[in-house]
Amino acid sequence: MSSKKKITPRSEDYSQWYQDVIDVADLAENSPVRGCMVIKPYGMAIWENFRDILDRMIKETGHQNVYFPLFIPKSFLSKEASHVEGFAKECAIVTHYRLKAEGGKVVVDPEAKLAEELIVRPTSETIIHDAFARWISSWRDLPVLINQWANIVRWEMRTRPFLRTTEFLWQEGHTAHATFEDAEEEMNKMLKVYQVLAEDYLAMPVIPGRKSDAERFAGALHTTSIEAMMQDGKALQAGTSHNLGQNFSKAFEVQYADKEGKLQYVWMTSWGVSTRMIGGLIMCHSDDKGLVLPPKIAPIKVVIVPIWKDEAKRGEMLEHARNLARQLSHLGAVKVDERDYLTVGEKFYEWEKKGIPVRVEIGERELAKDEVVVVRRDNGEKTNLATTKLVTVIEKMLVDMQKALFEKALAFREANTHHIDDYTKFKKQMEEPLPGFVYAHWCGSAACEEQIKEETKATTRCIPFDLEKKPGHCLKCGKATDQRIIFAKAY
Amino acid sequence: MSSKKKITPRSEDYSQWYQDVIDVADLAENSPVRGCMVIKPYGMAIWENFRDILDRMIKETGHQNVYFPLFIPKSFLSKEASHVEGFAKECAIVTHYRLKAEGGKVVVDPEAKLAEELIVRPTSETIIHDAFARWISSWRDLPVLINQWANIVRWEMRTRPFLRTTEFLWQEGHTAHATFEDAEEEMNKMLKVYQVLAEDYLAMPVIPGRKSDAERFAGALHTTSIEAMMQDGKALQAGTSHNLGQNFSKAFEVQYADKEGKLQYVWMTSWGVSTRMIGGLIMCHSDDKGLVLPPKIAPIKVVIVPIWKDEAKRGEMLEHARNLARQLSHLGAVKVDERDYLTVGEKFYEWEKKGIPVRVEIGERELAKDEVVVVRRDNGEKTNLATTKLVTVIEKMLVDMQKALFEKALAFREANTHHIDDYTKFKKQMEEPLPGFVYAHWCGSAACEEQIKEETKATTRCIPFDLEKKPGHCLKCGKATDQRIIFAKAY
Repeated sequence: MSSKKKITPRSEDYSQWYQDVIDVADLAENSPVRGCMVIKPYGMAIWENFRDILDRMIKETGHQNVYFPLFIPKSFLSKEASHVEGFAKECAIVTHYRLKAEGGKVVVDPEAKLAEELIVRPTSETIIHDAFARWISSWRDLPVLINQWANIVRWEMRTRPFLRTTEFLWQEGHTAHATFEDAEEEMNKMLKVYQVLAEDYLAMPVIPGRKSDAERFAGALHTTSIEAMMQDGKALQAGTSHNLGQNFSKAFEVQYADKEGKLQYVWMTSWGVSTRMIGGLIMCHSDDKGLVLPPKIAPIKVVIVPIWKDEAKRGEMLEHARNLARQLSHLGAVKVDERDYLTVGEKFYEWEKKGIPVRVEIGERELAKDEVVVVRRDNGEKTNLATTKLVTVIEKMLVDMQKALFEKALAFREANTHHIDDYTKFKKQMEEPLPGFVYAHWCGSAACEEQIKEETKATTRCIPFDLEKKPGHCLKCGKATDQRIIFAKAY
Repeated sequence: MSSKKKITPRSEDYSQWYQDVIDVADLAENSPVRGCMVIKPYGMAIWENFRDILDRMIKETGHQNVYFPLFIPKSFLSKEASHVEGFAKECAIVTHYRLKAEGGKVVVDPEAKLAEELIVRPTSETIIHDAFARWISSWRDLPVLINQWANIVRWEMRTRPFLRTTEFLWQEGHTAHATFEDAEEEMNKMLKVYQVLAEDYLAMPVIPGRKSDAERFAGALHTTSIEAMMQDGKALQAGTSHNLGQNFSKAFEVQYADKEGKLQYVWMTSWGVSTRMIGGLIMCHSDDKGLVLPPKIAPIKVVIVPIWKDEAKRGEMLEHARNLARQLSHLGAVKVDERDYLTVGEKFYEWEKKGIPVRVEIGERELAKDEVVVVRRDNGEKTNLATTKLVTVIEKMLVDMQKALFEKALAFREANTHHIDDYTKFKKQMEEPLPGFVYAHWCGSAACEEQIKEETKATTRCIPFDLEKKPGHCLKCGKATDQRIIFAKAY
């Protein structure tokens, strides 16, 4: 299955480069179902690492996992007015429940038509809030803090593996609280969890902030997000956390009796990250040689490639390699490449394409001298060292590489971040090959935001939480304002 | 959310008892979507334990996880003739991809009709084998050993939580091999994994064996299963493993070049267990007081209930309880019940209903004497002991309870297993309140099997692998045969 396919350089065609990296690293492939991908074993192993890390963090912050039905009755989607507008356009609709044979073909049985159509979940607020109405009656029942790992379907017109697919995998947190402040705290707490996940594990620096009204979740009071910069200077929204206010609790009649016995509507949040973040991970670090993975998320941390010319040395060489693998096993998965039907070059090339953080090479000469050659994936650095030093050197190398990838991505973002308040300059910046992030004053009106988007394809990303207010004038209409926001072209 | 609901005794109405146990233990509830359940936090925690144990075993046997699309093109389902017959009858069909607003209502947009309908997967052989045709070209690519954890939809008419739901969660393994023997070995290996899972973790004795032709998977060469006996003497098919032969590889053109360069069709297997096994777990061990969980699968192994009358003692009591919890933490999750709005009776009752294996009670008298009271869930045994002995006593108690539950279930199965070769006696046995398993001679004809089913509601379960051949006469037609099979009423 190993592909000989060449990788298009980033400088030539970034979009094709992304697809090539996915192909050569064998992460995923298109399926015969429009817009749906097959996640292959290596891509799935990365997603599983990601999921396990995040699942632990979600549980440590007091949430419990649940599972709700895949199908949502059509009437549920309509209960919250702005929610249905946001989601009804792009969904898979189940209308029948039986096929039958007819003239040697299989056809939909017209008699098996559902009385009410079912929507394949584009998100689960409605069906979960319907349950909250049953589960919650007193202040003692609050907060309700739940999460589910699920597959989601949104009928996307243009799809790309991981970044935007008709079906994707995600987690969705849903919580109910007694007060606005509690919901606000929860929203912020979970956005922070996403930031830690992105920065500390994926080595992907992100900017947490608040979305504009036009960009908020359909039905939310307000939406926060983490925004990352990809290597083509475009933004990727990597995770969102919403304060839903009482919009859904009023639509679904989710009330609790407070300590005085008075009925109150609950305050809700929801928050999610998806397989899209794997797309961000790929785009953030990989290079023209293929995938680059931060050690903490890599399914295989170290690959050991024993090299023998003399077939009589094979046994000794493999024994030695397996022994080293055992010494490194506390670091996570370590693989010994024992295949004998590939050349050494093919093996090196394959592990490079797959982004294994560290490669250990042992030839007959190294074996004789009790040495090894260690190669770091991100910078290609080659080190000869005594075998006795292998464990400590690799331990440090994995830590260094994790840090270096983050710092490199951060430096790239900083180099491609601009502060512009002149619209002509702004338009020019957005035409650059690396448009980057632009901090600019914005009056807050949806009209200005929309016009900027039409004229430059740049959208508002978020108002960073730590951004100081500063007097200035709206980029578009020139009105005085002290509010700035990040503009960028986005995935 | 704690329910005051009484549990119907098993002797009165077994089916209602099952539903009551699920309700009082707060495992799951019905959803507004026909036949679909909501898996609540405690039920989900059990499923997650189950999944983690099995996932580890699946990976240890060399399989890798993947994820394939939820939707299957209608034409795929039709490619393998007997497969479509088995699955086309009961599926959810997506016909449209957009809703629109019309006269204040949300309706299906007739213009958004799919050219080819999509089926929500009732199982994934077809879409996975379509990929195998792309992935496999040489003998070097074999075996392909993959697994996926997924949600599945089958339009069931009569549903019951966990046992049979329209949507359910499962894992499905799919493999491709060079020879029939390799596929056969794989099928047997994975059935053995299921047996270990059922017996060693769920404490549920099972009989592994081969299915009759009538009961085999649609499209398989042959099907093996593990069969468990529930407390009402009915059988539960708890897991299946199929040798698909070359039926699907011929339908999907999955071929490999052998070492001589000759094209050969691959031999395939598939195997799966689902949330149904959780239904079996509940039915196998629980009693009229509620859920009983084997320690190895219990999300909470031990609950500590500190009891204070004197409010001044509260701090000291909680401190003591938390300290004991820390000493027990190597055993898995240990919970301290610190709630002060429930009576002690309510607390005991709740943990009993939820099937926590061991309850530790500490009152003021125990605290003064440095003692604790330990109560084992399955037999209600109460032991007073010195606090210093707590850890060793509980360690042993969890092991003992795991073993006792298995032995009790095994003894029950043995007491309700019969060897009958007289059809009149057989019919009478099947009318008993506890019909049990009946070993009987069977000629192998589908006609006899079908007539027995019609007349007694008993179906063939499996031909146990270790069952010796013995001369006799078919239960139904009287023909001489040395083949026996298990008959039982089944879920």
